Amino acid sequence: MMNIELISIGNELLTGFTVNSNAAYISQGLFLEGYTSSRHTVLPDDVNYLEKGIREALQRSDILIMTGGLGSTCDDNTRDIVAKIFNSDFHFDLAIAKDLKIRYGDSFPTIENQATVPSKAKIIKNLLGTAPGFIFEANSKIVILLPGVPHEMKAMFTDQVLLFLKNRFVGSLKNYSKRIHLVGLPEAAVDPLLRQLQKEYPVVEFGIYPSLGHLSVQLSVRDCEEEKAFSILSKPEKAVKAAFASYLFESATGRIEDSLQQLFIERKLTLSLAESCTGGSIASHLTQVPGSSQYFLGGVVAYSNVLKEKLLGVSSQLLVERGAVSQEVVEAMLQGILIKTGSDYGIAISGIAGPSGGTADKPVGTIWATIGRKGEHPHSWQFHSRGNRAVVIERCVNAVLGKLLLLVKG
Amino acid sequence: MMNIELISIGNELLTGFTVNSNAAYISQGLFLEGYTSSRHTVLPDDVNYLEKGIREALQRSDILIMTGGLGSTCDDNTRDIVAKIFNSDFHFDLAIAKDLKIRYGDSFPTIENQATVPSKAKIIKNLLGTAPGFIFEANSKIVILLPGVPHEMKAMFTDQVLLFLKNRFVGSLKNYSKRIHLVGLPEAAVDPLLRQLQKEYPVVEFGIYPSLGHLSVQLSVRDCEEEKAFSILSKPEKAVKAAFASYLFESATGRIEDSLQQLFIERKLTLSLAESCTGGSIASHLTQVPGSSQYFLGGVVAYSNVLKEKLLGVSSQLLVERGAVSQEVVEAMLQGILIKTGSDYGIAISGIAGPSGGTADKPVGTIWATIGRKGEHPHSWQFHSRGNRAVVIERCVNAVLGKLLLLVKG
Repeated sequence: MMNIELISIGNELLTGFTVNSNAAYISQGLFLEGYTSSRHTVLPDDVNYLEKGIREALQRSDILIMTGGLGSTCDDNTRDIVAKIFNSDFHFDLAIAKDLKIRYGDSFPTIENQATVPSKAKIIKNLLGTAPGFIFEANSKIVILLPGVPHEMKAMFTDQVLLFLKNRFVGSLKNYSKRIHLVGLPEAAVDPLLRQLQKEYPVVEFGIYPSLGHLSVQLSVRDCEEEKAFSILSKPEKAVKAAFASYLFESATGRIEDSLQQLFIERKLTLSLAESCTGGSIASHLTQVPGSSQYFLGGVVAYSNVLKEKLLGVSSQLLVERGAVSQEVVEAMLQGILIKTGSDYGIAISGIAGPSGGTADKPVGTIWATIGRKGEHPHSWQFHSRGNRAVVIERCVNAVLGKLLLLVKG
Repeated sequence: MMNIELISIGNELLTGFTVNSNAAYISQGLFLEGYTSSRHTVLPDDVNYLEKGIREALQRSDILIMTGGLGSTCDDNTRDIVAKIFNSDFHFDLAIAKDLKIRYGDSFPTIENQATVPSKAKIIKNLLGTAPGFIFEANSKIVILLPGVPHEMKAMFTDQVLLFLKNRFVGSLKNYSKRIHLVGLPEAAVDPLLRQLQKEYPVVEFGIYPSLGHLSVQLSVRDCEEEKAFSILSKPEKAVKAAFASYLFESATGRIEDSLQQLFIERKLTLSLAESCTGGSIASHLTQVPGSSQYFLGGVVAYSNVLKEKLLGVSSQLLVERGAVSQEVVEAMLQGILIKTGSDYGIAISGIAGPSGGTADKPVGTIWATIGRKGEHPHSWQFHSRGNRAVVIERCVNAVLGKLLLLVKG
């Protein structure tokens, strides 16, 4: 199988102000198509470093996928360096110039620059931005250049680069895998079965990928034909699914909210939220999924106690007597949102996300949550969410969505 | 100045299921201390690849900081490979064994393995997990090994490794930089000035880091004494700030919400939100910042029209006549939230985030937003937010928060 390396370019990656999520996106896209990247490299916006780094990588690998350094500012050098390596001239591409004029107007300052492209490269169209991508190919080496702006890169990679690779390497052996998503189980509960299956199926690679509140089990075989691969994977896949049947959820992305949306729409149910400590993050997760308006009505971010009273009808006496982080208050918030919105299901959550606000009784990470169906007794529980503020919030989101999924599935 | 490279080890990074946030964390920590990493590399859990990759890196660089592969499972090889490169024997470290027994009990299975350490290495204590880190030093080369588990690595790096580097390289030349954050300007509006300044100040490195709706300009000098560095940077810094004075914002992280929070708290102002298309994302951004409860009261996620009526008092007639994405409806939403919450400022937003729901009149990405102060005429505007659903939402968040910041600053 061919060797693929990724090179990401940008000083902002080397100073740590930007996390290299582009490399993860491309690698996952490759992996799900059966390819594995053998190395990621991040290089600075510096002509000499770059040229040396690219030439080194071409010694090792068949395919380089590069992101960044394709804009028209002074520190964008990738296009020129790779063109030099492939001995390519440049020409002015009328179609690109025309498209940029239509989208950005005649007076857009960088049209001239962006429409001047290496003559030996195939163009990867950028429908969301100005910098086109390029595919260079010579002497059994392929170099693919994509812009560093994540949403532009993602669209171009998924819609054009993956297709190019599939057509270019038709029929070659690939890696195949199955992912099984589980909610509400710790890694330690899954590990023993996987170790046992590893002994039974030595050709299969097993992996556990825990997130904050859910996890994915991955089964893969490398360098295999498709039919054979899925035949090898089917038995251990069934074994894992059977062992953890009640924790399973289906999701193309591994996120609970996809599965939840499908379930609510199938059962013609609606949902609303009363969020305190999560501050809109539950709503934000749900509404990132296209089509969420079909079941999600909305909700209240009752961040302050005043809004818990004014928008959800929680009594000020209850807030004083029990405190905002208490079973009584989250249940009153839930009642409030169910009455105000008329939704079938509701979630209410209140806690201390930190870093300040903790007490001896209720330290940072103390959370009360409740889930209820209109007219039924709510399911309320307390838990402790460890980590920094962002992690505490993310754990809360996954904990309540996971619980809701299991409750509605029944 | 010495050359620092980072190497992160792990198949989960190369399959894209884990984002390499460790490299960003270490790089930012180095950068803020005046050091810059010149390269990041991700390598697989494979003995041959690893040894080759480490030897290559040692040819180029003085210091390697490595994460991952220090556990006690079969695919953890880093310790052995680096010990081999430094010709180090191993010995059983009683102090480490004792500490592990105290924390994990006598029968913890990997004590023997984790307490057997390379004799030539300094130990980096791991107070949060089982795998200690190591510092190897010989022939002017330093290799630092840290575990891959983020919270263990972070504590060890910040508390022990940075201190080691500071003491080891006292008085050496460093890199210094300034970051200037601008909101509401495209990259193309900033670039010409930076090109001009680059000619005037050739020793300064200029960089533009655009996000969706705001951008950061970075000015740095390398290998310099502190006083001299800030004297070199001060003139171009002033020039950039003067040219874009009305777009400036102060923020340690480069995020608008930090600056907004500081401004609102200073002026003793409060804020509430009425979100439709952003579905809770504005609230979620604001509440990620510790201390946001000091000015942010909360709001309504009026995702469905029903909730626009029930929670914000928008008339059903207006919704039918003007449509949910209209100036009249966002202004009615704003009025509703200001009355319900009594906050000083409010934001209301409604639009078509896509991918479906667009019409000829109002295509996907059509957004109406309004910002208002209690008792004053609101500032309403329409804009088009390009990109996929997640990007449309992110642009909306930055657009309204940026506008609010500029309006309140006056």
